Amino acid sequence: MYELTIRDYLKCAHSLKGDIFGPAQLMHVVTYEVEVSYVTETLNEHELIVDFATAQSSLGNLMAEIGFKNLDDLEQFEGKNTTTEFLCRYIHGRIADEVSGEFGGKLRVTLRESPVAWVAYEAPVTS
Amino acid sequence: MYELTIRDYLKCAHSLKGDIFGPAQLMHVVTYEVEVSYVTETLNEHELIVDFATAQSSLGNLMAEIGFKNLDDLEQFEGKNTTTEFLCRYIHGRIADEVSGEFGGKLRVTLRESPVAWVAYEAPVTS
Amino acid sequence: MYELTIRDYLKCAHSLKGDIFGPAQLMHVVTYEVEVSYVTETLNEHELIVDFATAQSSLGNLMAEIGFKNLDDLEQFEGKNTTTEFLCRYIHGRIADEVSGEFGGKLRVTLRESPVAWVAYEAPVTS
Amino acid sequence: MYELTIRDYLKCAHSLKGDIFGPAQLMHVVTYEVEVSYVTETLNEHELIVDFATAQSSLGNLMAEIGFKNLDDLEQFEGKNTTTEFLCRYIHGRIADEVSGEFGGKLRVTLRESPVAWVAYEAPVTS
Amino acid sequence: MYELTIRDYLKCAHSLKGDIFGPAQLMHVVTYEVEVSYVTETLNEHELIVDFATAQSSLGNLMAEIGFKNLDDLEQFEGKNTTTEFLCRYIHGRIADEVSGEFGGKLRVTLRESPVAWVAYEAPVTS
Amino acid sequence: MYELTIRDYLKCAHSLKGDIFGPAQLMHVVTYEVEVSYVTETLNEHELIVDFATAQSSLGNLMAEIGFKNLDDLEQFEGKNTTTEFLCRYIHGRIADEVSGEFGGKLRVTLRESPVAWVAYEAPVTS
Repeated sequence: MYELTIRDYLKCAHSLKGDIFGPAQLMHVVTYEVEVSYVTETLNEHELIVDFATAQSSLGNLMAEIGFKNLDDLEQFEGKNTTTEFLCRYIHGRIADEVSGEFGGKLRVTLRESPVAWVAYEAPVTS
Repeated sequence: MYELTIRDYLKCAHSLKGDIFGPAQLMHVVTYEVEVSYVTETLNEHELIVDFATAQSSLGNLMAEIGFKNLDDLEQFEGKNTTTEFLCRYIHGRIADEVSGEFGGKLRVTLRESPVAWVAYEAPVTS
Repeated sequence: MYELTIRDYLKCAHSLKGDIFGPAQLMHVVTYEVEVSYVTETLNEHELIVDFATAQSSLGNLMAEIGFKNLDDLEQFEGKNTTTEFLCRYIHGRIADEVSGEFGGKLRVTLRESPVAWVAYEAPVTS
Repeated sequence: MYELTIRDYLKCAHSLKGDIFGPAQLMHVVTYEVEVSYVTETLNEHELIVDFATAQSSLGNLMAEIGFKNLDDLEQFEGKNTTTEFLCRYIHGRIADEVSGEFGGKLRVTLRESPVAWVAYEAPVTS
Repeated sequence: MYELTIRDYLKCAHSLKGDIFGPAQLMHVVTYEVEVSYVTETLNEHELIVDFATAQSSLGNLMAEIGFKNLDDLEQFEGKNTTTEFLCRYIHGRIADEVSGEFGGKLRVTLRESPVAWVAYEAPVTS
Repeated sequence: MYELTIRDYLKCAHSLKGDIFGPAQLMHVVTYEVEVSYVTETLNEHELIVDFATAQSSLGNLMAEIGFKNLDDLEQFEGKNTTTEFLCRYIHGRIADEVSGEFGGKLRVTLRESPVAWVAYEAPVTS
């Protein structure tokens, strides 16, 4: 089993709905380290899991799209609670859509909120 | 598959029994980064794996109980070799006991002794 | 499931063959953090996964053998593209050969090229 | 002597002019960790160097202004070589302008390009 | 100029007085990385700044004294606002008292609250 | 004041002479992160402190010369106690000799032995 991980950053604002979120119910800024791992059983003819630059720009473009935004204002998050768990699955879905057809393994997305807390979501890419 | 990890610190003293441990047979101080990961297939209605504050205080309370102690003096470790592997399984058992009934996934406990050595133990929470 | 990880460093030079590698087709220096994880279901009579010092010197000796070398000049890499993925599998094979017969679990080798990119290879040790 | 440091991130694109910059003469993306340190001899009545939230938003606003941009396209950098050294001094100047009159000590700006290279610029805030 | 730095951890609870502290006015837990730097012009006959083990236990003993406590309950902090800046100066004073007479240089104490914020206090040891 | 820091690694073996060093009197392996900082008041015409690649290869060549060696066997360390402090000053001297005539500022060399202990030596480059 091979696994390539690339890391990027996401800085955005949002608020969370529900008493369980305490002060995070108010709009606040978060900075995440975002990691995307490509997991596969075999390498391609270049001895690579996937092309590194393509993987990096897939993630980079998505981060540019939602970075420095208030997530509460984005159409795709309307009526959603953008918890770290939710955002992991959302980023997973977006990257999976993009690589579907070309990459047949699993993807894992990890969001590090702080050095003492992080969340991951892992699922196969379905075609 | 979702996974939430929280991190805390454990500073304690202990000694290890057996020639294989070399100078660690003498009482010495260790500082561990301790990570507990909650692994599950689904999220709750708040789009969360578990409540973060509860997870954090479960670990924090246990660290306060055994932190700044000489593990050789604690009743629960009598006659035991408190290797990093043993401590991973011990912390796993304590957290598992506490969340059993409410959390149905797997727990993984990681103890980082130094930037060049760490140990993990992973097993399902049984009810 | 228990897992022990040890970390070391590898500084070497190499070049990669193929347009996909862009400027890395020219000879250049890379510094990797190299991690070897021993994964097993049970502990030995000392409450250990494997002897830490042995694991550390297995990795250290291999790093000394290929460190501060131009990999393009080493016989074992002749005609190969020493991508990070390839090097993970190579190190896995070398450590697996050494522990085969004594260790019956899985090994995972991780090479961190930078804080934003790393690769892992995991497979059972076969005897 | 007291010193408060806050850290943020800057992701942007730019190119550098001059043969000495080699491949960095082509447009490329860089991600910096940006640190601003406030250095002073005395504390205010709250036992603080400066208000943390104000310091954080000064830096955050500046990062939002130039982040996710091509620096080559920004008017303030026209005809300039935006080396890491230049950017340290630029950020220093912008923060110094903002705090001048309220803060009478020194500012240091550090830009970390990678875990193996970083640059700092330190100078008093003049009023 | 030589400088030796040792690092330890401090986990404690406290509250801060004054509207400027917002939610930190409520009792909360903080975990600091605590660093003490010994700065001097010359080495001793062993080519050392100070004895490392002594420096380490000076800091370790102080951390054990105030760690896992609510600082609001400790006599020495009565009526004080235990900001990070205050705590840097307090730890500096305690270590300085202990080494005064034996160490003639400067001490710097750094408290890291998070990867995005830290505070330092530096002053000579007076005898 | 501008400051450029570059980092490299040094893995070597050595032993220390004197009871104060305890078990470090026996031959043992150490891995240091080695940082060299160039401190200066002005930038050159390229808006640089010094040429980064030159600084990097000065340090890299020295690390290759003494890396993966037993320092006790090297002529230049005969009769010396190669403490971390000593090694900082030695590396400072070697880099200073190399840049003398071209660089007129200060150099600082930092050796990180572990995340809880590091040593620095800083002095002007004399010509």
